Amino acid sequence: MKATAKAHTNIALIKYWGKRDDALILPTNSSLSLTLDGFYTTTTVDFQEDLLQDRFILDNQPVEGEAYRRVTEFLDLIRRIAGKENLYADVHSTNDVPTAAGFASSASGFAALAAAGTKAIGLELSDRELSRLTRQGSGSACRSIYGGFAEWEMGNNADGSDSYAVPIAPAEHWDIRVAAVVLSSTMKKVSSRSGMKRTVETSPFYSGWVDTIPNDLLEIKEAIHAKDFEKTGSIAEANCLKMHATTLAADPPFTYWHDTTMRVMQTVQEMRENGIPAYFTIDAGPNVKVLYLPENEENIKKTLRNIPGVSDVILSKSGSGISYL
Amino acid sequence: MKATAKAHTNIALIKYWGKRDDALILPTNSSLSLTLDGFYTTTTVDFQEDLLQDRFILDNQPVEGEAYRRVTEFLDLIRRIAGKENLYADVHSTNDVPTAAGFASSASGFAALAAAGTKAIGLELSDRELSRLTRQGSGSACRSIYGGFAEWEMGNNADGSDSYAVPIAPAEHWDIRVAAVVLSSTMKKVSSRSGMKRTVETSPFYSGWVDTIPNDLLEIKEAIHAKDFEKTGSIAEANCLKMHATTLAADPPFTYWHDTTMRVMQTVQEMRENGIPAYFTIDAGPNVKVLYLPENEENIKKTLRNIPGVSDVILSKSGSGISYL
Repeated sequence: MKATAKAHTNIALIKYWGKRDDALILPTNSSLSLTLDGFYTTTTVDFQEDLLQDRFILDNQPVEGEAYRRVTEFLDLIRRIAGKENLYADVHSTNDVPTAAGFASSASGFAALAAAGTKAIGLELSDRELSRLTRQGSGSACRSIYGGFAEWEMGNNADGSDSYAVPIAPAEHWDIRVAAVVLSSTMKKVSSRSGMKRTVETSPFYSGWVDTIPNDLLEIKEAIHAKDFEKTGSIAEANCLKMHATTLAADPPFTYWHDTTMRVMQTVQEMRENGIPAYFTIDAGPNVKVLYLPENEENIKKTLRNIPGVSDVILSKSGSGISYL
Repeated sequence: MKATAKAHTNIALIKYWGKRDDALILPTNSSLSLTLDGFYTTTTVDFQEDLLQDRFILDNQPVEGEAYRRVTEFLDLIRRIAGKENLYADVHSTNDVPTAAGFASSASGFAALAAAGTKAIGLELSDRELSRLTRQGSGSACRSIYGGFAEWEMGNNADGSDSYAVPIAPAEHWDIRVAAVVLSSTMKKVSSRSGMKRTVETSPFYSGWVDTIPNDLLEIKEAIHAKDFEKTGSIAEANCLKMHATTLAADPPFTYWHDTTMRVMQTVQEMRENGIPAYFTIDAGPNVKVLYLPENEENIKKTLRNIPGVSDVILSKSGSGISYL
């Protein structure tokens, strides 16, 4: 009863920003992401009859507290589906997601855990079923089941049965790349979770955000299918700015941006003015991710590394979905 | 038929951001400002029977083009009210508003022009009538008729008859100060006028902006009357962030902020964490204005001057309304 799975993280081009149900992790809007080859988690789940509780080893260190609790509660879901509620597991995970890169390792982490855990316990789930299950561990993780571009359909049902990701285009469809721009100072005063919550509850702009997502999604899917980089990038960049704008109107207002974040954004816009197509997107933190095309890789890397306040630039291709090792 | 008037510029604490009528300059929301002692325009209007057209001398230089056109069209309004449509004027203005400080000299400019022009031609207008007239030269100028705090009531009538500023509290009510933080680079890619227009027409957040202004105004007037600096500053800062957030969701999105703008905002927030009450506000440009109390003047000045990318910090007290020289 042992299985190993590998999952890549993903970067949202149309952001997940707001929950309609905290416990089931149901979003207020659909979202769309690109799975990234360069950042992944490998997890082995080993269910053993003689264990009295789960164990969770991350990067060779035993984990306790909040992170442990989230893992065991997620394994509880798997045990319940399998009808094996008293079977505990040894979980070993390795994160190849540089923490400082500002990617939530929870996306690749919960996708790998869901894949390895369900396989180890003997469940045979479709991708869609696996995505729906993964969503309950970490919302954005449900998109990491697939390679390339994936859309998390928000669904309408109160039980979350229609809220899962679907594949939009595989990694092979289009060689589009992402530079993770890591800042020297990555402090954030408001967590992603509480920032999202405060925005949903207090920002007068939140309904404007939700209302405009369906059109953003429609347009970006057209652009992705047509491999229209300018259109894909413009929509992603505008969607990111719109998401961050909602936080500026929250009560009290807040932002995840630093001065260096702004400098990276300015530099990307200047690159475009100089004929190099590049677009930024930013999650709930100060780091910036830059979308670019393979032919501009050297130029992009050099330009971004030279920005004062930037400590590292990590490049990635589009990645594949879940794999079993 | 000659008169000289002096008017100070003002800084909006609740921003004017959007027109419902371009020609009459009618806003979509009411706004509230503090008149500033340090920045003013002095204007002499001299109507002369023998002139064949208006002349406009600004800081000893003859002015032509767009700026000249705005002045003569405004004088046309005055001539029409006075029934003297063929009487032209010599207009001499001196701006004591450092251009780089990022204050629109149009606020003090049109307030001084309206006051001197109406007096020179023999009209006796109430403050309210003068404010309503001034509004048609430059929207925010209608608030500069008064010293201290003034509110521009947006009004409802299509002819603008109920759209003018009213005094909220005179300069003597409260010694609150403003530091104008001037950046080394003050380039802006989108003018105030076109940015406002694009936001009104395309931002999905614009209705959220308009809807929340009445409450912002109610709260800040309470805070001003109570001399509650923390409340006044917090509301002003939040209102500024909300205004700038609307531009991030426009199509195409844009911002007036530079990386240094962000650094000044961060510094002000850090000052607060260190027990120095200070709040920022930003108009449609990259410069920042910081509200502070007299007892912190030295500290504020030193801290702001030390920010990399800041070229100057100009301090001002609260100023008086129109005066005739």
